[in-house]
Amino acid sequence: MPDDPPHADGARVLADLNALRAIGTYKTGVHKPTFSEPHMRSVEWLTQRLPEANLVAAVDGIGNVLGTSTKPGPKLLAGSHLDSQNFAGWLDGPLGVVYALEAARIINPYPNANGAVEVAAWCDEEGHFGSFLGSRSYVGGVTEASIDAARDSSGRAMRDALRDVGLAGRARAKAEPARHIGYLEAHIEQGRSLESSGLKIGVVTSIVGIWQYRITFSGEQNHAGTTRMADRKDAGLALARFCVAIDDRFPALCGPRTVWTTGRITLDPGAPSIIPGRAEMLFQMRDDDPAVIERLEDHLRNMAAEVGAQGRCGVEVMRIRTGVPAMMDAIFQQAIEDASLAFAGGRSVRMPSGAGHDAQILATIMPAGMLFVPSIGGISHHWSENTEDADIVTGAQVFVETCRRLLAG
Amino acid sequence: MPDDPPHADGARVLADLNALRAIGTYKTGVHKPTFSEPHMRSVEWLTQRLPEANLVAAVDGIGNVLGTSTKPGPKLLAGSHLDSQNFAGWLDGPLGVVYALEAARIINPYPNANGAVEVAAWCDEEGHFGSFLGSRSYVGGVTEASIDAARDSSGRAMRDALRDVGLAGRARAKAEPARHIGYLEAHIEQGRSLESSGLKIGVVTSIVGIWQYRITFSGEQNHAGTTRMADRKDAGLALARFCVAIDDRFPALCGPRTVWTTGRITLDPGAPSIIPGRAEMLFQMRDDDPAVIERLEDHLRNMAAEVGAQGRCGVEVMRIRTGVPAMMDAIFQQAIEDASLAFAGGRSVRMPSGAGHDAQILATIMPAGMLFVPSIGGISHHWSENTEDADIVTGAQVFVETCRRLLAG
Repeated sequence: MPDDPPHADGARVLADLNALRAIGTYKTGVHKPTFSEPHMRSVEWLTQRLPEANLVAAVDGIGNVLGTSTKPGPKLLAGSHLDSQNFAGWLDGPLGVVYALEAARIINPYPNANGAVEVAAWCDEEGHFGSFLGSRSYVGGVTEASIDAARDSSGRAMRDALRDVGLAGRARAKAEPARHIGYLEAHIEQGRSLESSGLKIGVVTSIVGIWQYRITFSGEQNHAGTTRMADRKDAGLALARFCVAIDDRFPALCGPRTVWTTGRITLDPGAPSIIPGRAEMLFQMRDDDPAVIERLEDHLRNMAAEVGAQGRCGVEVMRIRTGVPAMMDAIFQQAIEDASLAFAGGRSVRMPSGAGHDAQILATIMPAGMLFVPSIGGISHHWSENTEDADIVTGAQVFVETCRRLLAG
Repeated sequence: MPDDPPHADGARVLADLNALRAIGTYKTGVHKPTFSEPHMRSVEWLTQRLPEANLVAAVDGIGNVLGTSTKPGPKLLAGSHLDSQNFAGWLDGPLGVVYALEAARIINPYPNANGAVEVAAWCDEEGHFGSFLGSRSYVGGVTEASIDAARDSSGRAMRDALRDVGLAGRARAKAEPARHIGYLEAHIEQGRSLESSGLKIGVVTSIVGIWQYRITFSGEQNHAGTTRMADRKDAGLALARFCVAIDDRFPALCGPRTVWTTGRITLDPGAPSIIPGRAEMLFQMRDDDPAVIERLEDHLRNMAAEVGAQGRCGVEVMRIRTGVPAMMDAIFQQAIEDASLAFAGGRSVRMPSGAGHDAQILATIMPAGMLFVPSIGGISHHWSENTEDADIVTGAQVFVETCRRLLAG
């Protein structure tokens, strides 16, 4: 196909990713909280690269980097993020940004390639100040008031952070209706599915929604020495039994990929010689099918009623976050699968994403797609996160080819 | 019995207890942490009362109050404590001190009564700076170095507190061998046994020992969205299953009065979107029979091995406190029971104490006995702790009569 643009330059992709790793290095990973000095140097690095892809670089009033093209024809938006979790991995975010940059460098200057790839690095994907603030701002979902209220875990106001990095008062970029044929994002899998089956590309079908609950148990605080076992109303024990009951009963009720997690448990008052009078657990469920979650939530409430009916402890189930699953576009899925056939020997699989990504926000206003590359050992949100160089290169080739196919229509 | 001393003066006992409640009042209870201003004013109050019982009052270098007698004949040591838990009840401690004061006031000046009651108020029974530091000092179990090291939960050094209340450099009183025929202490039950059976006096047979364990579960920290259920090594879930297994299996293995409590649970890192890689529980068992605890601890370790053998999570059981049960003297028990027959219509029952008391420390060097009065609703370590006035008076009468009988030999 002499009219096709050249393939992704694997060595250049690896060099770029290592250049970003050299900013804010922590062991073999990075530490780049949103608006930290290494995060902003990474932003600066990207704005300097974008002209190589014939893109005009701009950083907007919430820290999003956007590279826009004046080339005629269809435009595909592609990207990911440059901020990191604390002391985390080098690929979570930068992989998708560098793939997008590479696709733009290959496609945009090439005269015979249709249209252009525009590059985005969404700010604060890792949620230091909120939840997907950068991409949500772009789709029109963030008010000035919510930026006023945003604070990081240390209590620092987002407004102060924006002022300190020189972005105060700058306009926020908003999506232009019909400017893009869609949004494409690449990411490490953060799980073991690809690695354990020897596959190279995950074709994301959906991004699951996250439902979160505060489940509170109320019993009777009492002396751990003088209160006989038969007289106790131990809220902590009621909580433990509830966790076990979930684990025993959910497998028969859940969907094939549902996951659920109790991430935090607090006993009150939490002293070794006091029977807990109150206990609380943070419980989370993820699925791409709200009907599955509805069934599980019903069961959770029935279980709570059962415990209450036993008369020892009361249980209150409060939903504190309601999931919004995002379906990936069928044409995008097909394009990734076709590109995998050409550049990854067809070693791809369709799978939902259990983690949240900016693509779920972009999917609310345009067709969206995602592809995954394997994660070694499934490790994520840890500095030891990694992917084989060869898999990174394969992923880049599939990504660039997917962009070309989508723009070619 | 014209030669017997008069009975306890119930109105005086209630007036004294209310006078102590008026110092450091919190709602219907008190707030008198060790060496706080209200605690030291309570100490001062007692030292002013002791001469009414022909006792010479002294406060020693660790804050113990001792009222000593020059009367010939046998001497019985009696008392409890004046410090309180934070925002706690008015009777936990003061009841035993005022009963001892009342017994001394009745018996010591009465010419026909044999011997004398000496009064003690042990410092820091509630453990703000350590564990029974006052009574342990009296029996010779506290080194200067351990006082140097003692700190309260705010980090304040016991040495600084002693200096601030004017006790620095003062000698610590030590038990004189053979000075006392034994030690008697009264206390609220802190449980519901007496109340629920309509009884008025608990004849304490033993004070249970407290064994404490740190049980640590190690799994694999991972992403709560991308890690499939089958791949998880959830340390928090392993902990919940362990708690439930304890609750299911211990009843068949424990003694008739064994109690066990999980007072604190910590999941690490404790975030809603992260599968806990590590979890820890503080677990406590109490019994007066070390053989029972040994059997339960063996079972605990077997259960840990079972979990480990399943290969998902490791469990480590570490004993961090070894209980020393204290048996109450048979003659003291009989004297309390006989006095209950005379002054409480025989409505007494023999029972172990599930809570720790200074009597367990004194029991290591002399015969010791304890009596309980009922607690309304079993409430303890809370400002709403209370006992019916009539029960307080009955307890005082039984207490004074027990002292008289023990001194009469």
